[in-house]
Amino acid sequence: MSDELRALQQRLAAFAAARDWDQFHSPKNLAMALSVEAAELVEEFQWLTEEQSRRLDAERRERVRLELADVFIYLLRLADTLDVDLMCAADDKIALNERKYPAERVRGDSRKYDEY
Amino acid sequence: MSDELRALQQRLAAFAAARDWDQFHSPKNLAMALSVEAAELVEEFQWLTEEQSRRLDAERRERVRLELADVFIYLLRLADTLDVDLMCAADDKIALNERKYPAERVRGDSRKYDEY
Amino acid sequence: MSDELRALQQRLAAFAAARDWDQFHSPKNLAMALSVEAAELVEEFQWLTEEQSRRLDAERRERVRLELADVFIYLLRLADTLDVDLMCAADDKIALNERKYPAERVRGDSRKYDEY
Amino acid sequence: MSDELRALQQRLAAFAAARDWDQFHSPKNLAMALSVEAAELVEEFQWLTEEQSRRLDAERRERVRLELADVFIYLLRLADTLDVDLMCAADDKIALNERKYPAERVRGDSRKYDEY
Repeated sequence: MSDELRALQQRLAAFAAARDWDQFHSPKNLAMALSVEAAELVEEFQWLTEEQSRRLDAERRERVRLELADVFIYLLRLADTLDVDLMCAADDKIALNERKYPAERVRGDSRKYDEY
Repeated sequence: MSDELRALQQRLAAFAAARDWDQFHSPKNLAMALSVEAAELVEEFQWLTEEQSRRLDAERRERVRLELADVFIYLLRLADTLDVDLMCAADDKIALNERKYPAERVRGDSRKYDEY
Repeated sequence: MSDELRALQQRLAAFAAARDWDQFHSPKNLAMALSVEAAELVEEFQWLTEEQSRRLDAERRERVRLELADVFIYLLRLADTLDVDLMCAADDKIALNERKYPAERVRGDSRKYDEY
Repeated sequence: MSDELRALQQRLAAFAAARDWDQFHSPKNLAMALSVEAAELVEEFQWLTEEQSRRLDAERRERVRLELADVFIYLLRLADTLDVDLMCAADDKIALNERKYPAERVRGDSRKYDEY
């Protein structure tokens, strides 16, 4: 894990501990909270066209920025609780994706690997 | 943004570009994809007790680790598309949360700030 | 509740009871399962344009139809567990929405009521 | 489709038409909105224990009731847009589930059918 992410996780752990929130932060509950934050992000986009979503006005962009932060925060908390190194996990997943989606085979195609 | 996160975003951007997937990666669509990955994480926990979620067996832990990676990957892609610095956004959000949830006031309490 | 919905809820309750699944079907867990099914629905649409989503091919339409059924099933189960009459709840919510979104005021506008 | 559900769908279609909202109600967008409502339901349960979720206080129960209505409303809208008969789809899905999860085989077991 990068030092910077590790430091952020420690701040978040301290934030929870100071509020006696560890009792609520089971992986099950944190996964729920993460998905709720992801939905709040979706809510910002649900009635926009794709084109509109590419050029947000300043007000919505700021709301989206803070929703991204919420997702990031719960993701870091959950990874911390499960002792998962996110950088490492991303490396492993990208390697898997490179095998599942070879560039020359899937170019311009959005199907899932098991639909080929 | 940390150099490490920036480097990961560049790998992901290259991965998408090599597959001509930028056409699919509007912020709207990436937000949807992020929420779908968050739900796949929730699915791993939905029938477990909180206690069970704290001590996953090796097989489930590995699936969860890769689902966390998927959420992280789409989060980085979406932040990149919107030119949002995630570390900076997290700092700003934590500062907001410190004001909304003062430790001495919310200790051991899981209510939302607007329920006090 | 309509007799037909009630009958469907009883079939679902019997299905769960025959498998000794009531222990898993707490409202908390059913809400998670419902959101997971909703995400599986979203997954079918995430890389489609809105236009494409309006004219699905037969294969995808059938997958979507069964995902809609999954959402419906968990919704009925959850409502049953909490003893909520869905028809009644929908009536009440529509009445609220009529007050929050008066037709003459919101015509052609997709903002949330608190953004006006 | 039951007459009652059909009548409710017609009210919802009229509600949308009177507000000129059909332009926003593509299946893609309605699926997003449905998943957002499902997440608002999850939010009510995320910090509760399963036991607490079985005995909600009156205030939370009423919020949950209206969130269930929101999910139901978008589910009916989406099914209507795609011309899917929800009762019929549920029947078909239950028949599939009976084959995937034979009672004698899965009793007291919460694994997915492909984990057996």
